Amino acid sequence: MTPADFREAMSRVVGAVHIVTTAGPDGDAGITATAVCSVSDEPPTVLVCLNRRARALAAITASGVLAVNLLGGDDRDLADLFAGRGGVDMPKRFAAARWMRLATGAPILQSSEVALDCRVTGMQDVGTHRVLFCAVVDVAGIQAGHALVYAGRRYARHAVT
Amino acid sequence: MTPADFREAMSRVVGAVHIVTTAGPDGDAGITATAVCSVSDEPPTVLVCLNRRARALAAITASGVLAVNLLGGDDRDLADLFAGRGGVDMPKRFAAARWMRLATGAPILQSSEVALDCRVTGMQDVGTHRVLFCAVVDVAGIQAGHALVYAGRRYARHAVT
Repeated sequence: MTPADFREAMSRVVGAVHIVTTAGPDGDAGITATAVCSVSDEPPTVLVCLNRRARALAAITASGVLAVNLLGGDDRDLADLFAGRGGVDMPKRFAAARWMRLATGAPILQSSEVALDCRVTGMQDVGTHRVLFCAVVDVAGIQAGHALVYAGRRYARHAVT
Repeated sequence: MTPADFREAMSRVVGAVHIVTTAGPDGDAGITATAVCSVSDEPPTVLVCLNRRARALAAITASGVLAVNLLGGDDRDLADLFAGRGGVDMPKRFAAARWMRLATGAPILQSSEVALDCRVTGMQDVGTHRVLFCAVVDVAGIQAGHALVYAGRRYARHAVT
């Protein structure tokens, strides 16, 4: 089995699309991520896997905080923007949407289906990626609606009722 | 924020539904899981989060191997069965579907949308759960079709083309 076989297999997995953000020493930073996973509800904990070369990861490592913003079905342009398509710089990415702040100061997307405000409590490097363990200190924006998902290398809306 | 707030928030996240299996010292064991996440493609690695009290986890810890079976949209009964609804014992759960084996010997669901044959390479306990880091040694059953997803506390089919 090659890495390409693995990537093809993983492309079949339906994944919710998130923008992971932080308030870093050089300003706000963010990146689109599907590798986000609930870990435990006591204490409330999620994990996020990011490529170790991602600029947003350096900012998160410096700040020790992040927000996980679950995208709604209408935010696929925002997903592309924060995935780095078009090479748009961080200030312009953030200018494309409306944000607020909770306890940690990490940017919370006002249109998100749900957002988690988190402190990073642990990290583990695995191959090309770093796994961030995150204590969830607050939640925002819980609303019935629809979520953006990614599967078969394309976006789709999925109703969440 | 309470654990209930956190669970409500996480219920908004669309998750693919998997059955995680192993060939344990007391026979085959398996459990339904949504907390499965791609980590790195070099080397191909996924992680699986399981409740530390899960019987299947004890079997996985003993065997050191597992398979991640991504369910197709028609397998919601199988998802309920392996989630423990009805209290059906392991041999009867496995009798409800057709399985095969790859390199590790962990049961591979023949009707899965895609399955990953894995060796456990690391573990980390976080609160109520254990995170299993898994090297993917083989993949099976990659097919265009549909996947079973769980969101808003209900199952749905999602086309994967």
